[in-house]
Parts: sequence; C-alpha cells; structure tokens
Amino acid sequence: MCNQLTVQQTAQLLLERDRILILSHQSPDGDTIGSGYALCRALHQLGKRAAVLCADAIPWRMTFVASGMKEALWLTPEQAEYVVAVDIADVKLMGSALSQYQQPGAVDLCIDHHPSNTRYARDLLLCPKEAAACQILYDVITAMGVSIDQKIAQCLYLGIATDTGCFRYSNTQSRSHEIVSKLMETGFDWYSINYRMFELKTKAQMDLERRALQTLHFCCDGKAAMIAVTQEMLSQSGATMDDVEGITATARNLEGVEIGATLKERPEGGFKISVRTSESVDASAICAVFGGGGHIRASGCLIREPLEKAIRLLEERFAAALAGTLPVFTD
Amino acid sequence: MCNQLTVQQTAQLLLERDRILILSHQSPDGDTIGSGYALCRALHQLGKRAAVLCADAIPWRMTFVASGMKEALWLTPEQAEYVVAVDIADVKLMGSALSQYQQPGAVDLCIDHHPSNTRYARDLLLCPKEAAACQILYDVITAMGVSIDQKIAQCLYLGIATDTGCFRYSNTQSRSHEIVSKLMETGFDWYSINYRMFELKTKAQMDLERRALQTLHFCCDGKAAMIAVTQEMLSQSGATMDDVEGITATARNLEGVEIGATLKERPEGGFKISVRTSESVDASAICAVFGGGGHIRASGCLIREPLEKAIRLLEERFAAALAGTLPVFTD
Repeated sequence: MCNQLTVQQTAQLLLERDRILILSHQSPDGDTIGSGYALCRALHQLGKRAAVLCADAIPWRMTFVASGMKEALWLTPEQAEYVVAVDIADVKLMGSALSQYQQPGAVDLCIDHHPSNTRYARDLLLCPKEAAACQILYDVITAMGVSIDQKIAQCLYLGIATDTGCFRYSNTQSRSHEIVSKLMETGFDWYSINYRMFELKTKAQMDLERRALQTLHFCCDGKAAMIAVTQEMLSQSGATMDDVEGITATARNLEGVEIGATLKERPEGGFKISVRTSESVDASAICAVFGGGGHIRASGCLIREPLEKAIRLLEERFAAALAGTLPVFTD
Repeated sequence: MCNQLTVQQTAQLLLERDRILILSHQSPDGDTIGSGYALCRALHQLGKRAAVLCADAIPWRMTFVASGMKEALWLTPEQAEYVVAVDIADVKLMGSALSQYQQPGAVDLCIDHHPSNTRYARDLLLCPKEAAACQILYDVITAMGVSIDQKIAQCLYLGIATDTGCFRYSNTQSRSHEIVSKLMETGFDWYSINYRMFELKTKAQMDLERRALQTLHFCCDGKAAMIAVTQEMLSQSGATMDDVEGITATARNLEGVEIGATLKERPEGGFKISVRTSESVDASAICAVFGGGGHIRASGCLIREPLEKAIRLLEERFAAALAGTLPVFTD
C-alpha cells in the first residue's frame, strides 16, 4: 500500500506534521544530504522540530550543510513522530545502522527521483524525470510557503550540482539551470561549494590518480583503454578507492576509445571491473560474460584473477565486442 | 570617438545594416566563436548577408558551430559594408592576418564583455559584468526579434559554458544559468558540446598530462606545489602546450596548498611560470620579483634558467611569500 502524492499534497502533509525525522541514505552523496538538510531547515523555519539521520557521517567536503542549525529545534530519533526518507530508492540503502526504519510501515513519506524506487513508504512523492531529488525538494519547500534563504539554497544547490556533475552530465535539465538561477539570487556562496566538490583534491587522491594514470593501457587498435588501481597503490598513496571515482570515465573519454574500463583490486583479491562504452558497443554484454551486468553504456563485473590475466580476458572480450561477435544480452 | 550603445540601440543598428562581417579574435575560444556564429546565424535568419572572419581556424572541438550555414547568405570580406567585432578587447587580438581591421575607424561596432576593452570601435556595446560575450549576444539577438533556434542556441551555449568552465568558475552568474535554461528549451544537443569541450581528451593530451603529473613536487611544508611541462614531454607525447591548459589549476587545487605553479618550458629555453594563490598570498608580488605580474590570485613571469634552478628560485620566493616577507606590489 503506497499512495502516490503530488507536490502540493506532500507540502500539505508536512505542514500538518511536527517532530519530523528525515533519513538520508548510507554512503551519503550531495543529493541525499542536500535534500535532507534543505527540508530540515525549511521545517525549522516553520518552527517545527526536525532532524536529519544518516547511517554514515557527512563527508568532510559537505559538512557546511549543517552549520548554524537551530539546535533548539533539532530532535533525537526517539522523539520523532513522523519519518521522511529523501533520495532513498530502497530501504536496504539506509544501511544496517538504521535497520529499525527498514521494517514495513516505518517510513511515513518518501521523496525520491529514482525510477527503481521500491515503494516502501506509506506515502510517496516520486518524480523519476528529475535530475536530482533536490529539484523535487525545491518544489516542495516552495509549496510549503517557506522562503528559500541562503542556507536552504546552498543545500539544494549541493544536490543539483553534484547529481549533474556540475551541469556537465547528460541528465542535466533546463529545469536544473532554472532552479539554480533562482537559488543563486539569494547570494549564497556557491563558488566555495564548487571548489570543495569539483576542484579541491587531497594530496593522497592526486597521488593515487597519478599512479593509476601510469597504468593507462590501450588495446584493440586504440579502440579500448584500461586503467588499474591496485591495493598497493592505495597503501602507497594513503587514498581510498572512493578517491578515484572520477577516473572511471577517464579511459572512455579518450579520443577514438569506444570501450573504457577501470580495474579496481579488492582487498580480498580479484578485480572489480567498471566498463563504459560508446553508442556502438554494449557494456552489459561484455560484463555478462563474467557474470556481471548493468546498463548498456555502463556496466560492471568481478574477475577473480591476477591483474595480467584479468587484462587479457578483458582484451579478448573487448575485441569480440568491437567485432560484433559477442552474444547480446538486454538490460 | 566611441559611442556607448545600449542593447536596444545595438539591435536597431544591426537591423538597419546589411553585408555584415563579424570578426572573432585570434586563437579563438568558445566565446568569440560562439558569439560570432550566433550573430551570423541570426542575421541570416533575417535574410541579411553576413560572415564570420577569424585569423585562425576554428578549433576542431568547435567546428559544429559552422554546420548547415546558409551559404547563399555568406559573403567574402571584400563584399562587407559593416564590420562588427565580438569578444575582442583590443585590435591587437585580431592577429596580424587581420591587420586591415586594426586601423582606426575600421570596426563599426564592437560587442564585448572585457573591462579592458580599448574602445577602438566607432560604436561599442560593452557589458563588463557579463560572464561571457554570448550572454550579451543573447540579449542583442532577442532584441532584434530573432527567435533563437537550435543552431543559435548551441553557439550561445558554447560561449557561456566555456567561459564559465561549465558553470564551475567564480564568474558564473545567476543570469548564466537563466539564459542556458532558456537555450536548452530549444532542445539542441548540449550534451555533445559538454562531451567535446569538457570530457573528451586526445591520447596525446592524456599522455602529456600523465607525464606532467609525474613532476608534481611539494615544498614549503606542503603549502606550495609545482608541476613542470618540458619540451621533451611535448615531443614524447605529440601534444602541444595548449593541451595542458587545465593543469595550471591542478597544483593550486590540492588540499593545504596555498601557492600552485606550473613551469612551462619554451622552445627557445627558459620557463613560463604561472602562479595561482589562495586568498592569503599575493601571486603578483611573487611574479614581480621575476619581472612579471598579473592579478593578485593569478600571475605569470618568465625565468630564463634551467628547470632545477627555476624551481629553487621559486621555492625561495614561495617561502618568503608564505612568511609574509615579500615586498607587496599592487595590480
């Protein structure tokens, strides 16, 4: 039983409630954190008690979202009377620390933009065409009659800017720019968010990236490229695998390359493979051969072999995919 | 004698003219090319004859601006009756191939956003607060009563997106997003522009970047960082110095780094130094010591010494700047 709500109905429901606990997903990104804190600040502005709860700490680049909160209006999870999940497609994504909210009926309202949403909440505002949950929150907060101040604007901006890769990815919408244009009129310091999220690198991150780029390797007459990140590189640089997230696109975005892959060594051995392809090649078909899958342009799989063998196996599959002799699986 | 015009007056003037030659600056970037082709297409839409002239070829990533032009309405420079310069702050920036337009009175109208504009044109529409000349062209084209189609939209988008670093740089405005939101409503393929301009790298470019990152070098307790690009790296990778433009910010954008520098070797020997600093350090004071200068956060100079000596000289200056013992020069 899941009621689909409109923006207006959602705003009305929130206006009628108090003591509201907002859940963000584990390994939080800018969109779930931005959505959570924007809604929390809007509820505080209305004099309501509200708090944001997440299984993991806010990443250090995003801690600004929590600065200058009205502490008197914060609440503990035990004091909550109404539970709202933001940007959480499935209860499993809350993380085991929040298992109590994974029970049926535990979440009163979910506000989300993932088409894969499992409809676990009693009430649901699902807008699968929106580039970011923060775009939905912009509508909900406006419909609640809250005026968007600089603090709310910076939270919403964080979500929209991160989910669209700072307006570079193909999911960016005319509406993303339109909302951001209005948010910027509040005069908040959006550049320091861009700096932290898109420009600033840690020394460890740069060192890992430098080491990984040394492994860049072409095959199939330059039509495929691979980059490897090993556990040894992680320990030498002091970085984590999360620090090379940006590198997955690097190989694919080289001129003439139709298949780009990163091979990330797992602590327990073997490699997590991410494959990105151009329009002419099916990434999911390549990964299906190794028991993996995903989308047609971006897929993943696991190869439990040493690096050199993994590279050789991938090269064979890439050559077959480029020659069109690989069996095609659909999403 | 230079008349300052409003957007309305500029639009009116263009509506009254025909056989219009539009000049873009040498080493063309997205903003001068986007401005030129957007205006040319708008004039063609009005049935006027117009063409764009530039001392250098359109860079390969931007050639799409010229696709599907109305050839019957194009003209040769000799056929021109009215000359318009777009995004050109100084006649010298036209390049020596266009020296005939550098004579006094040769340019009828200039549309520009550089505060440093030398007012060389008879009529001038100068909007120094605009992030991109394409934002001014958007207003002029709209004021001319031309409906912005997909082809014009992609030219204007190119200029705004490139001058703002895809909406990441501090010069981005609420208005930049607002205009882009409207441009995107025409449904042009903006993602392929982002892909070409901000994601796609040539193999030579990636190889050069990889080599340059190997030289990353910290000093002053990690508060300063340098990256060198040598002529040997250029010949080994097959890239040009333009291919590492993005790297100038890399050193400065590392955590804890207050002074970032790139050392680019010149073919004739010696190094062109670019210095970028955080708010607490004056880059122009560092460069002034070597006879260079620029802005307080971004300056440049020339050091005619071998790499190791250049690095040592810079380290000394960086240490002095961080200790606050460098004489301060003003812009």
